[in-house]
Amino acid sequence: MNLNFSSIKKIKIEKPLLLDCGVTLSGFNLAYETYGKLNEKKNNAILVFHALSGDQFVTETNTVTNKDGWWNLAVGKDKSIDTNKYFVICANVIGGCMGSTGPKEIDPSTGKPYGLNFPVITIKDMVSAQAHLLDYFGIKKTLAVLGGSMGGMQALQFCTLFPERTYASIPIACAASHSAQNIAFNELARQAIMADPEWDNGNYLTSGKVPRKGLAIARMAGHISYLSEQGLQNKFGRKLQKQTDVKFTFDADFEVESYLKYQGYSFVDRFDANSYLYITRAMDYFDLYKQNNGNLSKAFDGSKIKYCIISFSTDWLYPTLESKKIVIALNSIGAEVSFVEIVSNNGHDSFLVDEPAFFNTLKGFIDSTYEEFKNEI
Amino acid sequence: MNLNFSSIKKIKIEKPLLLDCGVTLSGFNLAYETYGKLNEKKNNAILVFHALSGDQFVTETNTVTNKDGWWNLAVGKDKSIDTNKYFVICANVIGGCMGSTGPKEIDPSTGKPYGLNFPVITIKDMVSAQAHLLDYFGIKKTLAVLGGSMGGMQALQFCTLFPERTYASIPIACAASHSAQNIAFNELARQAIMADPEWDNGNYLTSGKVPRKGLAIARMAGHISYLSEQGLQNKFGRKLQKQTDVKFTFDADFEVESYLKYQGYSFVDRFDANSYLYITRAMDYFDLYKQNNGNLSKAFDGSKIKYCIISFSTDWLYPTLESKKIVIALNSIGAEVSFVEIVSNNGHDSFLVDEPAFFNTLKGFIDSTYEEFKNEI
Repeated sequence: MNLNFSSIKKIKIEKPLLLDCGVTLSGFNLAYETYGKLNEKKNNAILVFHALSGDQFVTETNTVTNKDGWWNLAVGKDKSIDTNKYFVICANVIGGCMGSTGPKEIDPSTGKPYGLNFPVITIKDMVSAQAHLLDYFGIKKTLAVLGGSMGGMQALQFCTLFPERTYASIPIACAASHSAQNIAFNELARQAIMADPEWDNGNYLTSGKVPRKGLAIARMAGHISYLSEQGLQNKFGRKLQKQTDVKFTFDADFEVESYLKYQGYSFVDRFDANSYLYITRAMDYFDLYKQNNGNLSKAFDGSKIKYCIISFSTDWLYPTLESKKIVIALNSIGAEVSFVEIVSNNGHDSFLVDEPAFFNTLKGFIDSTYEEFKNEI
Repeated sequence: MNLNFSSIKKIKIEKPLLLDCGVTLSGFNLAYETYGKLNEKKNNAILVFHALSGDQFVTETNTVTNKDGWWNLAVGKDKSIDTNKYFVICANVIGGCMGSTGPKEIDPSTGKPYGLNFPVITIKDMVSAQAHLLDYFGIKKTLAVLGGSMGGMQALQFCTLFPERTYASIPIACAASHSAQNIAFNELARQAIMADPEWDNGNYLTSGKVPRKGLAIARMAGHISYLSEQGLQNKFGRKLQKQTDVKFTFDADFEVESYLKYQGYSFVDRFDANSYLYITRAMDYFDLYKQNNGNLSKAFDGSKIKYCIISFSTDWLYPTLESKKIVIALNSIGAEVSFVEIVSNNGHDSFLVDEPAFFNTLKGFIDSTYEEFKNEI
C-alpha cells in the first residue's frame, strides 16, 4: 500500500504538555480532519475521538490510505451525524501514527524517530492534547464529544477534564476502566509485537526493519475480540475456502482463517507497531475509578453535561454491564443521562458497521440536543 | 526445566494405522500411564483422554516434569475417580509430545525428527490409535471413557467408532465441532508459532533452535480463552504487581500480565511447538456433524452407551449450548443421557480446578454406573 502522508493536515501546539508519566512535551503536533462547516455561533461542533486502530479520517476518503474513512457509515452529508448541519472534528491521538506526535515521528532532540524513547501516554494525555483543537477553532463549547471503544473512554475523560467545554457526551461501547480480560488481550498483542525480532527493541524505523508478523498477530487477536461468537459463526461458521474439503496442511482451510490473516497482514501496511504498544498501554492504564479514589460518581460530580451511553448486546470486550456502571455513577449524582443497549450480533464492532438502531439513536440524540443547545448559546 | 523422558512407559503397536489424511502409519508408539489395578473381571477400567496441553500423567507425579499430574484433584485414591476401585488408563495422543508418535519423535525413514513431515492427524486418528491400549490390557469394554475439552471430543468420537467397547461416556466441556471462534483462536496460536523465525519451518529440532516466543504467545492466547471474564476479574482485576503504581513502561505492571507471561513461557519448557500445531489442527477439523452428513444424531445411532454430558456456566470456549446440541442429538435417538451444567466462575478451566459440584457429579455418575456395569459383565 502506498501511503500519502503529505496529505495530512497538522497544527503545531507550542505550549508544553505535562504528561501523566511526569515527562513534559515542550510542544506537539496534532494531525486532524474536519467535515462540514463551523457556523457563526460556533455551536455546531462535534469532536469525535477515534479508537485504537482509527485515525482522524472519520469519513469521506482517507487521503493517506486512499480508503474510506472508518466511520463513513455514520458521519457525512445526510448521515446520522449530518455534516450538512454539524462541524465534525477529529484528531489523531498523540502516540498514534497518522501524523500526530508519537513514536513514529522524529524526536527533535535526536533527529531520529522516537521509538521507545517516546514517553508512555495515557487517555488523559490524549484528551488534554486534543482540547487544543477547540482553542484553535475558537470553539468554547462543543455540541457533543463522542467516540466508540477507546474513543468512548476519551469522551468520558473529556467530561472529567473539561466539563464546561461540551454540552453533551456520547461514550459508545466502552468502560470506565479496563478489565483483567481487556488487559490480557492487549498484553497478548504487545507480547506478539515485542517477540518479533524485526521489532528490534522498538528501533525498527531506524534499522529499516518492519515487525510485520508481530503486528499482524496482535491485530488478529484484536479482531477475535471485536466480533461476537455468534457473529463469527454467522459470518464464517466452518465454511471452507474454495476447496471442497480440508487439505490436511497448516495453510488456511477455513474462511475464518484467511479472514484473520488478511485483517492481520493488511493492518501492517497502515499502522505503526510501536503506536500499537503505546495506545494499548494507554487503554490499559485508563481507570476513572482510580482517578477518583474508587468513586466513579466523583468523576462527573457537578457535571451539567448531557450524557448518552450506548452499549451493544453482544460486545464481550466492553459488555453492557460496564456501561451500566457508568450510568449508575451518573444517576447517583443526578446527571442527565440516557442509556441504550443496542441489540446486535456484531459484537464490539457493532459501532462500526451498519446498525440502523444505533444510527437512529445517534441521530435522535444529537439532533434533539442541538435544538436545546442552539437556544442556549 | 529438566525433563526426564526416560521415565515414559510406551507400547509399540505394530499394526498399520490408516489416517484420515490418507497416509498410513506402519506402526506407532503409545506412551501411557495407568493408576489403580485392573480387576479380574476387567470391568473397572476407565479410559481418560487428555486435552490439548495435557498428557498421560493424569495424577500423582508426572515423572517427566516432576510436577503434579494434570487431574490430580479428580483422580486418585479416595478422589472422585477413585483409584482404589478403578483402573485408570491414559495415553498421550498421537501427534503429542510426551512419548507417543508425533512430530517431535524420530521418523524411522529419515532418522530425524518428523517435524512437519508428520502427517496431519484428526481426533478420529487419535482415538483409533488409543483403542489399541484396551487390546493391550485385554479389556473388552471399559466402564467409561471420559475427558474434558479435546478429551471430551475424543470421548464422543470413541463412542461413534467403538460403540461396543464402553459402557458409559462422559464428554466434559466440549463440542461436537469447533465454532468459528474456536478455529480463530487456534489459528492465532498457529500463526504466532509459525511467525517465530526460530520455528524454522518446523525444523527447529534438527537445527537446534527453539520457537520459545511463538509458542509462549500461542499459550497466552489459550489461557485467555480458558478463563471467564469474571474469573479473570476475580483473580486479578486491575491488581498491580508489588509496586504501588503503574511504571509507565512496557514491562508487566498488572498481575494479569505477569500471569500470562509466566503461563506462556513456562509452557515452552514442556511442550513441543509442532505438536501444538498438529493438535490444534485436529481440534479444528473435528466435526461430528460433517462425519454424519450434518445429522449429529446419526453419530450415535443404535448406541447402548450411557452418556453424562457436563458443561460449565462460564465456559465461553465451549459454551453450554454446544453441550445441549449433543444432548438433543442423543435424546432424539432415545439414548440414555444425563446432562449437567455446573455453575462455576472458572470458565473452561473449571474441569481442571477444585469444583466440588463437578467432582460430585463425576463421582456419582461413575460409581452408580459401576454398580450397573459390574452386574452385567
